[in-house]
Amino acid sequence: MLKKKNRYVVAVAGATGAVGREMVEILEERDFPVAELRPLASERSEGERVEFLGKSITVRKLTGDSFRDVDIALFSAGAERSLEFVPAAVKSGAVVIDNSSAFRMDPAVPLVVPEVNLHAIARHAGIVANPNCSTIGMVVALKPIHDKAKIKRIVVTTFQSVSGTGKNAIDELASQTVALLNFREIEKSVYPHQIAFNCLPHIDSFLDSGYTREEMKLVNETRKIMEDDSIRVTATTVRVPVFRCHSESLNIETEMKLSANEARAILSGAPGVVVYDDPKKNLYPLAIDVTGKDEIYVGRIREDESIPNGLNMWIVLDNVRKGAALNAVQIAEQLIK
Amino acid sequence: MLKKKNRYVVAVAGATGAVGREMVEILEERDFPVAELRPLASERSEGERVEFLGKSITVRKLTGDSFRDVDIALFSAGAERSLEFVPAAVKSGAVVIDNSSAFRMDPAVPLVVPEVNLHAIARHAGIVANPNCSTIGMVVALKPIHDKAKIKRIVVTTFQSVSGTGKNAIDELASQTVALLNFREIEKSVYPHQIAFNCLPHIDSFLDSGYTREEMKLVNETRKIMEDDSIRVTATTVRVPVFRCHSESLNIETEMKLSANEARAILSGAPGVVVYDDPKKNLYPLAIDVTGKDEIYVGRIREDESIPNGLNMWIVLDNVRKGAALNAVQIAEQLIK
Repeated sequence: MLKKKNRYVVAVAGATGAVGREMVEILEERDFPVAELRPLASERSEGERVEFLGKSITVRKLTGDSFRDVDIALFSAGAERSLEFVPAAVKSGAVVIDNSSAFRMDPAVPLVVPEVNLHAIARHAGIVANPNCSTIGMVVALKPIHDKAKIKRIVVTTFQSVSGTGKNAIDELASQTVALLNFREIEKSVYPHQIAFNCLPHIDSFLDSGYTREEMKLVNETRKIMEDDSIRVTATTVRVPVFRCHSESLNIETEMKLSANEARAILSGAPGVVVYDDPKKNLYPLAIDVTGKDEIYVGRIREDESIPNGLNMWIVLDNVRKGAALNAVQIAEQLIK
Repeated sequence: MLKKKNRYVVAVAGATGAVGREMVEILEERDFPVAELRPLASERSEGERVEFLGKSITVRKLTGDSFRDVDIALFSAGAERSLEFVPAAVKSGAVVIDNSSAFRMDPAVPLVVPEVNLHAIARHAGIVANPNCSTIGMVVALKPIHDKAKIKRIVVTTFQSVSGTGKNAIDELASQTVALLNFREIEKSVYPHQIAFNCLPHIDSFLDSGYTREEMKLVNETRKIMEDDSIRVTATTVRVPVFRCHSESLNIETEMKLSANEARAILSGAPGVVVYDDPKKNLYPLAIDVTGKDEIYVGRIREDESIPNGLNMWIVLDNVRKGAALNAVQIAEQLIK
């Protein structure tokens, strides 16, 4: 358990990555009571600098000894590094909020989206897991619907931006786009195929079932966060040539009938949700508009006439922010409450 | 009815558009027995030239008098022009193959995808309608499944390229992309929002139900072509920053259980379908690979564990080619058989 203090020593593991940098910015933006910020990264990024509250702080190498006196450690350095260094951080007495997939499905580790299952934080034993970005968007939008009408089944197809992969992928989309517009050959290193002007139905690695790990995160994490294993989920996850924000096409079947207007009313009052739904005025959530926003934007809410109790909707979230860094900082805010 | 001849006078209305140009190319490529090619377009494009069999042919203005001696008229000039000029073409004795939405749902007009409902051509009375591009891809891939296992319900989300809108949209994606990469303001004229590096859940206009006309085409045209009104369909159609080829995420529920392997076997022998499905080798259909191809490419075939008899798949088609121009020429080929 975290000891109550006025200010906390906060480590950020993976501080030079897209999510790590966003975590540092959000800590500053939300006035998190930081006594000392300790940015950590792999050897490759050692010595880089991170700006925090007007000071430039040198990034140190992430090792097992990095966590002396650390109260809270935010990890966003990939599952392998989490598996290697999270135990050391916990042993040093830090509470870890881990953004990787390493501990998410561990029954002993709470998997938390504050708007959905805040109460689960209490049972942590040193680690709180931050869900996958696409899952966070989906559960924030669907929990209020589930509470009212009980969701039986979700069919989800995602449109995921390259920032979900990381900084290298952002560079790859930009450089492939420039190459193609100049009739030059493209170079590939992050994705197995050209991402510029293309859609890849492939995120994370493939399992024997034919599903990707990303698709199964949407199935399994949703059930764990919603605390209801009866919810059936099937997913298709797709990488699109967008820099930031994930969009998702959601089709849901509920136990009780909800009209589109009822769904709109429920979501309009829901925490962390903005209903943005006036299609006749061309208003619906868009990746370029949701960049930098804290909330999940929901639009195109309409009744699915193909089943008795069905709804379709279109959601967009800033995957780097609410899909990762912000959710982690929100968990930290709850830990110190 | 079309009189049997050795060679036919073929008019192409909308000959300077993306689909019209492709129609002319495909007529040449497939050795269609053309006695005279008559390219027609709006006043704006009058005098432009179209290359056909090594000759440069001047584009004439589309009027009610354009169809004297024409045997076959391929229309791809939008629904308004079809409504205005198709009756004149039919009155002149031409058989019209219309690529617009104008006559598709007219019970007197057959709506044809040769691989699916070839027999329907026979009952035409001067007009054969060419379905919407996204519908063509879906029905070619799903008819063989329907024949074996009876499809009860389809949940489809599309990823549609800008070439579906036309040449101006291709230019808009390119110029917006260049502007953004040079930190300049973008200009919008074709789409209501930025399409570069963005996804728009908006294709064609919105109905009071909240659905777009494009989404309802997938519902209604599918039933008409498959000749089965019991098939329930719900659709979300999305424009993506891709130049050519539409991708679709399909979730289907069948009466009889089909394993992924059974579905793969059925589709491997199906007309107009290529199964491209080896995800562990990173092989799945991609817009950039299917450009210029005649077939519907199907991959990511997997069992949907959220229902007893469910399948997910990912299909890609060249929307300009099989989704429009090629399908029209294939209908013409059947008409002269």
